Amino acid sequence: MKIGLIGLGKMGFNMRERLRRHDIEVVGYDPRPEVTDVASLAALAEALPAPRIVWVMVPSGPVTRDTVSELAGVLAEGDLVIDGGNSRFTDDAVHADLLAEKGIGYLDAGVSGGVWGLDNGYGLMVGGAAADVDRAMPIFDALRPEGERADGFVHAGPVGAGHYAKMVHNGIEYGLMHAYAEGYELLAAEDLIEDVTGVVRAWTKGTVVRSWLLDLLVKALQEDPAFSEISGYTQDSGEGRWTVEEAIRHSVPAPVISAALFARFASRQQDSPAMKAVSALRNQFGGHAVQRPPNTETTGA
Amino acid sequence: MKIGLIGLGKMGFNMRERLRRHDIEVVGYDPRPEVTDVASLAALAEALPAPRIVWVMVPSGPVTRDTVSELAGVLAEGDLVIDGGNSRFTDDAVHADLLAEKGIGYLDAGVSGGVWGLDNGYGLMVGGAAADVDRAMPIFDALRPEGERADGFVHAGPVGAGHYAKMVHNGIEYGLMHAYAEGYELLAAEDLIEDVTGVVRAWTKGTVVRSWLLDLLVKALQEDPAFSEISGYTQDSGEGRWTVEEAIRHSVPAPVISAALFARFASRQQDSPAMKAVSALRNQFGGHAVQRPPNTETTGA
Amino acid sequence: MKIGLIGLGKMGFNMRERLRRHDIEVVGYDPRPEVTDVASLAALAEALPAPRIVWVMVPSGPVTRDTVSELAGVLAEGDLVIDGGNSRFTDDAVHADLLAEKGIGYLDAGVSGGVWGLDNGYGLMVGGAAADVDRAMPIFDALRPEGERADGFVHAGPVGAGHYAKMVHNGIEYGLMHAYAEGYELLAAEDLIEDVTGVVRAWTKGTVVRSWLLDLLVKALQEDPAFSEISGYTQDSGEGRWTVEEAIRHSVPAPVISAALFARFASRQQDSPAMKAVSALRNQFGGHAVQRPPNTETTGA
Amino acid sequence: MKIGLIGLGKMGFNMRERLRRHDIEVVGYDPRPEVTDVASLAALAEALPAPRIVWVMVPSGPVTRDTVSELAGVLAEGDLVIDGGNSRFTDDAVHADLLAEKGIGYLDAGVSGGVWGLDNGYGLMVGGAAADVDRAMPIFDALRPEGERADGFVHAGPVGAGHYAKMVHNGIEYGLMHAYAEGYELLAAEDLIEDVTGVVRAWTKGTVVRSWLLDLLVKALQEDPAFSEISGYTQDSGEGRWTVEEAIRHSVPAPVISAALFARFASRQQDSPAMKAVSALRNQFGGHAVQRPPNTETTGA
Repeated sequence: MKIGLIGLGKMGFNMRERLRRHDIEVVGYDPRPEVTDVASLAALAEALPAPRIVWVMVPSGPVTRDTVSELAGVLAEGDLVIDGGNSRFTDDAVHADLLAEKGIGYLDAGVSGGVWGLDNGYGLMVGGAAADVDRAMPIFDALRPEGERADGFVHAGPVGAGHYAKMVHNGIEYGLMHAYAEGYELLAAEDLIEDVTGVVRAWTKGTVVRSWLLDLLVKALQEDPAFSEISGYTQDSGEGRWTVEEAIRHSVPAPVISAALFARFASRQQDSPAMKAVSALRNQFGGHAVQRPPNTETTGA
Repeated sequence: MKIGLIGLGKMGFNMRERLRRHDIEVVGYDPRPEVTDVASLAALAEALPAPRIVWVMVPSGPVTRDTVSELAGVLAEGDLVIDGGNSRFTDDAVHADLLAEKGIGYLDAGVSGGVWGLDNGYGLMVGGAAADVDRAMPIFDALRPEGERADGFVHAGPVGAGHYAKMVHNGIEYGLMHAYAEGYELLAAEDLIEDVTGVVRAWTKGTVVRSWLLDLLVKALQEDPAFSEISGYTQDSGEGRWTVEEAIRHSVPAPVISAALFARFASRQQDSPAMKAVSALRNQFGGHAVQRPPNTETTGA
Repeated sequence: MKIGLIGLGKMGFNMRERLRRHDIEVVGYDPRPEVTDVASLAALAEALPAPRIVWVMVPSGPVTRDTVSELAGVLAEGDLVIDGGNSRFTDDAVHADLLAEKGIGYLDAGVSGGVWGLDNGYGLMVGGAAADVDRAMPIFDALRPEGERADGFVHAGPVGAGHYAKMVHNGIEYGLMHAYAEGYELLAAEDLIEDVTGVVRAWTKGTVVRSWLLDLLVKALQEDPAFSEISGYTQDSGEGRWTVEEAIRHSVPAPVISAALFARFASRQQDSPAMKAVSALRNQFGGHAVQRPPNTETTGA
Repeated sequence: MKIGLIGLGKMGFNMRERLRRHDIEVVGYDPRPEVTDVASLAALAEALPAPRIVWVMVPSGPVTRDTVSELAGVLAEGDLVIDGGNSRFTDDAVHADLLAEKGIGYLDAGVSGGVWGLDNGYGLMVGGAAADVDRAMPIFDALRPEGERADGFVHAGPVGAGHYAKMVHNGIEYGLMHAYAEGYELLAAEDLIEDVTGVVRAWTKGTVVRSWLLDLLVKALQEDPAFSEISGYTQDSGEGRWTVEEAIRHSVPAPVISAALFARFASRQQDSPAMKAVSALRNQFGGHAVQRPPNTETTGA
């Protein structure tokens, strides 16, 4: 099998390597000359046998949209595009419709595993038509972890279902990480606990909370026990927001995932406007002393 | 009527004044010579006609405990002590028992109103025996707002009930303030809103959210429209914590009050240990860039 | 002044009455013959002097959209439409553009006050062009509470700002109500508190938590002290959801408002799917007994 | 080695078995004649070689307290008691002091692993003196999972540290379970997802959210795909509450763990008093229809 792979960043680069290890020929395209195999999407299309399969692994949103549009121009009837990026599931129907006008098939594939996927394999959640899924199965089998297919791959439903499942996966991930993080902070605050890293490590086997994320937390603590080389400033890449938006749309209470999301928002604020308002209110009714922001303090005040 | 009042801080000082305006004679005691009327608690006891009534208005915890203990020594059978501070309700039975050994009565009185109570009157929530409440009623009537007694005073139950009601009052206060604060932050973040202070002020009459706290928020915004002279660093004085502890004891879900409490905790952290853990985890699995704390950044890194 | 008012439901009916009390002539339209003044929108347009002002007070979403579309057909250049319903602020630009094609002006007006607005006046938050706002000011002055205009009216910004401000107002309202509700539940759970209604009533004057909502809570408790005639099943009308969505869009932490929203979602669930999952997990790892749903229990099991 | 084990319930029974498999002789005591090895604690003490080691595995609180008290009477100087139950860490100093009066040593051991610990081993978190820990190490080595000791065992600090670590472990467990539960509920609510169990199973290998709890969730879904045989009514055993209490004591924000705890409280309410209050408020200001509780509805109303 020989496929195209667009986007050779942190994820795509490793996926090309894993596919090749599993004897799938990959023609990779990336705007960066030092990593790309071909010079353009047109060249990519020419380099593949028809009917073609092209895996898209680029940033979600406009970049994915533009890539799919361009593919609609260079691919032909019977070809198949798989969006493996972190697109919002609502983009999938748009992409599928756009390609369907040219007779090109479309699958959305949620991919999890991060930088470890190269060796461990990637968890895959796929949406689309069964015939398209079957056709791409050798790719999925190469990317997914060893063992039973159903432990690392699912055909979740029609177009959109793959990214929906991945979105929920990431929403859960927010909650899991924050649960560990709260526990870590509490251990670190308590004098009785003389060996925080040791406690977290002792949880990695036998306990109810053991997980891959916990293994990574141990690794991180062993590298930097008090997290002194890291700040709490934390980005979010969209899936957490979408998960809460979907919870709202479905009237599903999501206190844990939303709390984890809001904690990320707060981590990026120098000072909280809301807490300024609370502080101002306390000052108004109680004459409670307020703290002035560092940059407004003057000597002699 | 002539009573003693111990503690002439922000609250006690104003309360002495309001009581005097209502023709209640007050002998005030405070360790600060410039505000006290007598030199000691013994002198206070001597200055009052038996049976005495002494109102305690000092910081909750050890200071209140010590004051009550000392009063047990200088007061006599038939006297009455009223703790008007923000004591934890669990302290009240201890104080009442200690005084009961000497035949001294005890009431706990939650007092709300802040620095505005001098003119507006104070909301009062009282716990204790009905006979003691009746005896102290002239004091309560002087302190509470004008109008119907039941709109600003309640005999909530036995000893402890007053501070319990006050604790819940303050827990609610945390939630109310944070609800307004979230709304303020959202208004301030939205470009469509050209006049944040104007919007908040327009809510003060006719709307569902009108309240005294909202009036204060308008006042604070008029004084400092972008809260540029105030930091979000916000203390908490105990009642919010106790309210959540009580919610836990009674198996009552308290997501709003606890969220407001946790936001105060977070406001006092330079950086969040929990978010450092989240950031470290993201770095481990995804190779996401982490931000180094400001003080560890080096040129050339 | 003579204006049109479309929608004579709970809000519109009272607003027509308040406008008339303030000597504004109102031609009301409603599909229900028993309340309408005219038979159709076309008849409404004919009954008004040009340039016309028409206030729309119908359910947000499709009904408002259809009404605005129909008005674009029956009104003329120079007329002005005011949407006073609870539309999502993102609808306003759509409505404004649609009407602008015919030279018809547009204002969005958030209206708060509920069934009490007839007598108390309504809090008003308005978005749109200054000239349009000025033109409609007699209407706003009639609807808003007595007193200073700025205490119950704001021109918040361009089209959309009025509904944005109203959305935030309602989001705050969710948080305020839930803060009181948590406090109420805690009071009701505590044996020390012998008079829950009395405690809540004693907060209505002098305290920090006094508000109009608190007055209503007292009224509700006086009518039904244990809320025995009411279920916790609670609808939401959209603004709470939109507020959390906007908080997400602006990266503003909104733990309090979202908690209040999620509690409404939960109130409408017979049983929580999430808690079923938690219960199932506990059973898996700990052999903890699970409770079977009532309808699956069988005798002899 | 020959030790005593008190409490042969779900946990203790399996632990006796695992210890025996690892060639540790165990004299078990339980009030139930059908499982006990000896008739009394005195008989247990007699059956063990001095200096004795006795592992206590009974319900936390009064039962553990009574057991430790009784052991103080039947054991002798130089003996060692290990509390492996889920005691609150604040009980440990009390137990240690009580035993120290007789020269008896004390360790607190948090034990995780549930019914699977028999075969997988138990994660162990231990507090106490290093010499006591060393002495009991053969027991810990038998109970903990195979592999490196530090992956399933930690000497976390002085007396109390073991139960503190276990408490935090369980607090995290609450958060993890609820994160998965929210994700499950969202998957189940979305029509695009045609195979909820399949999606969750596909997460068990390669993904970021893979964990032992996730494996159990798959198992539970395979046994009962829609959780139709289980209710959401969920108990809590104390550690979640203590974790939030500790978070409050240490001023550590814990929105995720507290949300998971509050969801359990809510799961045990037939109807929410707080939501009744919210519903009553909405009815007061907006004339919103309220739903009457099922048992108060009357025909003709």
